[in-house]
Amino acid sequence: MEEQDLPVARDQRTFEDYPVGSVAVYGPIVVDEGEIIDFGKRFDPQDFHTDPVKAAQSPFGGVIASGWHTGSMMMRVLVDRYLSRTAGLGSPGMDELRWTAPVRPGDRLWFRVTVIEARRSESKPDRGLVRILIEVLNGKEVVVMSVKAMTLVRCRPGATA
Amino acid sequence: MEEQDLPVARDQRTFEDYPVGSVAVYGPIVVDEGEIIDFGKRFDPQDFHTDPVKAAQSPFGGVIASGWHTGSMMMRVLVDRYLSRTAGLGSPGMDELRWTAPVRPGDRLWFRVTVIEARRSESKPDRGLVRILIEVLNGKEVVVMSVKAMTLVRCRPGATA
Repeated sequence: MEEQDLPVARDQRTFEDYPVGSVAVYGPIVVDEGEIIDFGKRFDPQDFHTDPVKAAQSPFGGVIASGWHTGSMMMRVLVDRYLSRTAGLGSPGMDELRWTAPVRPGDRLWFRVTVIEARRSESKPDRGLVRILIEVLNGKEVVVMSVKAMTLVRCRPGATA
Repeated sequence: MEEQDLPVARDQRTFEDYPVGSVAVYGPIVVDEGEIIDFGKRFDPQDFHTDPVKAAQSPFGGVIASGWHTGSMMMRVLVDRYLSRTAGLGSPGMDELRWTAPVRPGDRLWFRVTVIEARRSESKPDRGLVRILIEVLNGKEVVVMSVKAMTLVRCRPGATA
């Protein structure tokens, strides 16, 4: 896979810079076994996240990342690379989150973000709702997680609906 | 609010012990400011998660937890209290995740889990799909997050469809 960023610099992105159909690709992020285990011990203490010996005997055959850990790694990439630093107004939520394959230590994750809807707010015309499909893929290009997320973004100053 | 657990002990819960309409309530979990900041720095480095001074000047008026942090705290409660330790088979995903109010340092969070669907698998009759609505509430009983999650659970040994 190959990185592909949006054309406008992240500091200057507004609602208008997330048109439907635009695609960005970021990666790879290498998954660290120690972090899988630390995250699991704190937030998802099941043997297949925290104990390499027991995990080896589980159906997964080794430790795998908590789904919440994979989602959190994804969030970090979005904050670092995709979301506007100046016009972002947070997220009301997400839909259709799916964990479709295990994430293992050493996996190299890629993140593909596609805008599936961009709608100017009627009640607050200074902003719009951008819906994105985020796919997380491993080095074999297998989708390990996907989710449709909503994000609110301020419009370009002076833009009219 | 008051804690309310399922009648069957967690080590012995099977698919049959999550009937539609059953409700469990767990809490309170006190939200720690240091952990909000640590989590934010690692996974969601936006000022309103990581910097008390800048957060005070943001629309939130102070640091708030990353949505992924709130979800991860929720996961910990489910693993510790609700999910079967013996019959749980993981989660294929979640739907309709909503972050509806800020989570702040010192908040005392409660977790209400309601079974909204329980369906025996047709292709794998040793298990069933349990869909749960999880509501996270603060001390004022304001819902701060809600999500519908799927979880796979083994049936009681010898149970027939």
